[in-house]
Amino acid sequence: MSLEMVEDIKEWIYEASALIKERLSSPLIVEQKTSAADVVTNVDKEVEAFFVQKIQQSYPNEKILGEEGISEPVEDFSGRVWVIDPIDGTLNFVKQQDHFCIMLAVYENGVGRLGFIYEVMRDELLWGGDSIGVYINERKITTVKKQSLADGIINVNTNMFVANSFGTKDIAEKALAVRMTGCAGIAFKEVILGKENGYLSCLQPWDYAPGKILAESLGLIVESLDGKALDLKAQSPVLVAGVETYEDIKNLVHH
Amino acid sequence: MSLEMVEDIKEWIYEASALIKERLSSPLIVEQKTSAADVVTNVDKEVEAFFVQKIQQSYPNEKILGEEGISEPVEDFSGRVWVIDPIDGTLNFVKQQDHFCIMLAVYENGVGRLGFIYEVMRDELLWGGDSIGVYINERKITTVKKQSLADGIINVNTNMFVANSFGTKDIAEKALAVRMTGCAGIAFKEVILGKENGYLSCLQPWDYAPGKILAESLGLIVESLDGKALDLKAQSPVLVAGVETYEDIKNLVHH
Repeated sequence: MSLEMVEDIKEWIYEASALIKERLSSPLIVEQKTSAADVVTNVDKEVEAFFVQKIQQSYPNEKILGEEGISEPVEDFSGRVWVIDPIDGTLNFVKQQDHFCIMLAVYENGVGRLGFIYEVMRDELLWGGDSIGVYINERKITTVKKQSLADGIINVNTNMFVANSFGTKDIAEKALAVRMTGCAGIAFKEVILGKENGYLSCLQPWDYAPGKILAESLGLIVESLDGKALDLKAQSPVLVAGVETYEDIKNLVHH
Repeated sequence: MSLEMVEDIKEWIYEASALIKERLSSPLIVEQKTSAADVVTNVDKEVEAFFVQKIQQSYPNEKILGEEGISEPVEDFSGRVWVIDPIDGTLNFVKQQDHFCIMLAVYENGVGRLGFIYEVMRDELLWGGDSIGVYINERKITTVKKQSLADGIINVNTNMFVANSFGTKDIAEKALAVRMTGCAGIAFKEVILGKENGYLSCLQPWDYAPGKILAESLGLIVESLDGKALDLKAQSPVLVAGVETYEDIKNLVHH
């Protein structure tokens, strides 16, 4: 991990963003995955392939875990692992041409080193890591506003809210207001920028990998609501919050 | 109503936006209205006073209905009535410094003539009316993408969703996905731009006045879910949708 790597990744992200914007002028090819709301497009695949190619050119023989599974499956997290979500919030991308992110994380021996969340249509890049700090575009973020659950806005996954999974609805109703955005990257960004005070959602590793690195670098808590350790091989019910909100939430989580 | 009036209003909105952004660098004075989530700030009041002054200077002796009630109460809607929401989404403004709108509408003898929804932090102005068409910044919108309830994203008010008021939850669960944004202006904008296919929320006249004018100018439907006519003197449970989604929703509304 070096500053050169950070610059490489930023350059790829801006290039991928230009590609995505160009593709928005043509009809998308949309395929269903597990349900009508869980979709993938030709652009998700093209952007993941773009990142895989860039990584393989500059950092050959390293492992790559991508949402669309274009590269070899990752069997273990020894060495360096790149985690890619080419378009996070694909349903928003398809229906809104807005409110989606490009996400990338770099892990070394299972430890998160660098995270990147780029909200494409707002040109906002949240990036950094434990050793370099966290930045929104060029501005360094040093602290996150502290607020209790009752004093802030909470972002939740709709299904978990409706089913009250792990007490999500009970928790959300203690907050000042509830938001649903359909994009993990945006929700992590809002919590990290102190605009929302918590996020609860069912996430795949590529949905939370960069956000976890960035959030933890600023002292926020990222945990699985099921009490298990977060594991880059499986989906988890993830909670992101500052310490104050986390303390309020902890007592309300149902197992 | 003239094109000169349209230009006046745009100029005021951009000036108000600059004022709001300037005020974001100082601490806000926040007061509760009906609950902890229903708030008003010194900036809401200052911006409403700014509009009232501008209107009185250029269009003296006309009626003004503002959220913060700075001008004389409006007893009836004869003649010209200006409807102002200086900051729509005040909780977002306070907690996020983002995701809020300036809204203004012009009515003549109870008929909506001009509507303006300005999403301040994205610099997006949705404006127009029946006689001039609808524009997003300088681009004219001629049609709204047609989609059924099951084929699009729906935006809902949290309380109505939780209580299933008028069947809001049943309706939302038939959509592809649910979003909660906490700002009527943004929700109207998303529906008018075809990015969401419906919006259900409990709204005051200043929350829906400009959106109704813009939506109806493009053939969308704006109605009260309680079966009554929308009335500029009272709060209503408002539905906004295209014809296809409206037909799907109509059968699911509970009274």
